[in-house]
Amino acid sequence: MVDILGKLADDLEVVRAQGRYREYLNLERRADLAPGAIAHGEDGPRDLVVWCSNDYLSMSHHPVVLSAVVEAVERVGLGTGGARSISGNSIYHQQLEAELADLYGKPKALLFSTGFNANDSALSALGARLPGLIYFSDELNHASIIRGVRSSGAAKRIFRHNDTEHLRELLAAADRDAPKIIVFESLYSMEGDFAPIEEIIALAEEFGALTYVDEVHAAGSYGATGSGYAEELGLSDRITVFHGGFGKGYGGAGGYLVGPVEIVDTVRSFAVPFVFSTSSPAPVVAGALASVRHLRANADQREVLHARCRQLRETLAELRIPVLSRDSHILPVLVGDPHKNKEVSARLLRDHQIYVQPVNAPTVPAGTERLRVTPTSRHTEDDVVAFAKAIDQVWSSVELPRLPH
Amino acid sequence: MVDILGKLADDLEVVRAQGRYREYLNLERRADLAPGAIAHGEDGPRDLVVWCSNDYLSMSHHPVVLSAVVEAVERVGLGTGGARSISGNSIYHQQLEAELADLYGKPKALLFSTGFNANDSALSALGARLPGLIYFSDELNHASIIRGVRSSGAAKRIFRHNDTEHLRELLAAADRDAPKIIVFESLYSMEGDFAPIEEIIALAEEFGALTYVDEVHAAGSYGATGSGYAEELGLSDRITVFHGGFGKGYGGAGGYLVGPVEIVDTVRSFAVPFVFSTSSPAPVVAGALASVRHLRANADQREVLHARCRQLRETLAELRIPVLSRDSHILPVLVGDPHKNKEVSARLLRDHQIYVQPVNAPTVPAGTERLRVTPTSRHTEDDVVAFAKAIDQVWSSVELPRLPH
Repeated sequence: MVDILGKLADDLEVVRAQGRYREYLNLERRADLAPGAIAHGEDGPRDLVVWCSNDYLSMSHHPVVLSAVVEAVERVGLGTGGARSISGNSIYHQQLEAELADLYGKPKALLFSTGFNANDSALSALGARLPGLIYFSDELNHASIIRGVRSSGAAKRIFRHNDTEHLRELLAAADRDAPKIIVFESLYSMEGDFAPIEEIIALAEEFGALTYVDEVHAAGSYGATGSGYAEELGLSDRITVFHGGFGKGYGGAGGYLVGPVEIVDTVRSFAVPFVFSTSSPAPVVAGALASVRHLRANADQREVLHARCRQLRETLAELRIPVLSRDSHILPVLVGDPHKNKEVSARLLRDHQIYVQPVNAPTVPAGTERLRVTPTSRHTEDDVVAFAKAIDQVWSSVELPRLPH
Repeated sequence: MVDILGKLADDLEVVRAQGRYREYLNLERRADLAPGAIAHGEDGPRDLVVWCSNDYLSMSHHPVVLSAVVEAVERVGLGTGGARSISGNSIYHQQLEAELADLYGKPKALLFSTGFNANDSALSALGARLPGLIYFSDELNHASIIRGVRSSGAAKRIFRHNDTEHLRELLAAADRDAPKIIVFESLYSMEGDFAPIEEIIALAEEFGALTYVDEVHAAGSYGATGSGYAEELGLSDRITVFHGGFGKGYGGAGGYLVGPVEIVDTVRSFAVPFVFSTSSPAPVVAGALASVRHLRANADQREVLHARCRQLRETLAELRIPVLSRDSHILPVLVGDPHKNKEVSARLLRDHQIYVQPVNAPTVPAGTERLRVTPTSRHTEDDVVAFAKAIDQVWSSVELPRLPH
């Protein structure tokens, strides 16, 4: 008989030997300390400043979110006790869906337990329900999009990242009468670059394709009412379906889909991960609702976030430290070597109380290993100065190359 | 060009015409009213009693859960801001995993956003990492198990529900040297029947297979410390991997896996839905931790739950109303017709303020349409009497057959 556990143990040894076993920092992200936090390790607690969180607008700690959570849990408790269709619907779910539909100016919205589930559910259900469908998907789309497309059984064409010429070729080569959906992200998490949304929309209109845009890293942080980057460009009306989530700029958890009734109801009726999951806890939904409403009405945190990002971007440019993105709030600092990447991260933590998780292959291509640095609206100008000073020092001590003058 | 939305609209018309479009009751499950709740409809709010919730032990409203949620959200906020490996780990996640490992007497535990994700993640990752693996899966396993097995790419053999003779045949016919995992549920949600766990374990031991048991509907409600039905039978030591969730008996949300380090670390390292999802909000994890600890130390709610179930079971037997299960806390009342099933549910709601969602095909086989009735520990003896009286009346008014004397 085969030794299953032994086989898995051998594989895990390889993972460890390659430095790919993920260690989790045991964090206490205290509301009163953010972006500071306490790491609990074997040597006791240590203070640090988090520089790799997706809580871009610091909403996870915002008083309006905290009080909405407290109010909801005391009113209706924690778990909903069922899927949406079997006693798991609540007034909070209904209100948040209405709010999202209104925010994006689309007919209908639907909530999911996670952003991953939203993509996986939507894309797998649409592919299964539309015979002959072809997905046109950016090569750097998130794992949840890849999984949804794959499990749908639909045909797919992968276009080179943000390459609209390639997308045009693929659209032109496809059967004119096949249903088509172009799937892309407005802001790519690991690259920090925006999609050429207007060009993609124009192609969609030319070839009769629908557009499905994942705004998860832009939601909350862009647009006059925080709905995302399409709003910033004034293009929301020309997008068919929006995907987003509350786990990043909105400081909560869960995902959503907003779009035409026909699309949302198809997902709602046929998506297996949606239909067969307990719905999100009402307090989590209430917190998301408070966050969406707050960021819809208030631009202050967006302004602070972008100001800090500009400051950091300029400072790193002065230090000639390479940053992969040009203009978003995600600043991937290019190290380009897995071991040095871990070393930079370890030294930042050990010597400077700065926490940035290194991102290595296979999450990003080998040779482009990076630190994905993300300021938030609660980082101060002084925090940026301290971070720049620290990375400058570590960059030299690890002997990493700088950009030319 | 093809009219995608028109095609979806046509399909949805069929769904509606077949009575399969799911209407959600807009519920306010007030903590102070449970199992009562308020339904908000077009005619204003209405009081009702929920009889179809998975909140079996009423933990969603328990004071220890509420105070744990409030304490955690005020301390560390709502969202974690990242996946476990990128700033999304917390002291609460660490504590709950340690608690679960200890509860089940296994080396390691891992948390997931939902129970669905836990099965999908675990089974897809194990199948992908174990070349030649064969899954042996009960035909009534949950959609999340089916999806995980399918997306793993591994071979599968489906055995007839709870049929250990059939399982033996399939095991005997399989390559002796192939790695094998038997996947089953301890308690089937729609049938309310238990798996023959001891016989399955004996077959696993005979054929060198691992066992993977989903305890999601039993967790909290069975065993001296509430870990599930295997504990009730004294068999926990002989199970390889436990799957469970907090969305039912524990009154929260999220899923978990408990088992050998090799298995848990493989899932932790390679499961796409796990690696690429934001971790559960700390307050949700803190609430689950409080619930697990409470139900580990206190058997009161389990005793009340089972007493109410016995009372309801005996009363329905006296009324000669057919119930599909024999001895669990899930009582599927057999109606056997989709339209009558909806009618019974509608009359219970309209005339008796009782909410039980009808379960029709394809969730259950056509001809076995049922009302899945689930008492909770907060239903009183009087609630059971009122329910029995109501269903007795409705049963007659819809002219449904009764069991023979």
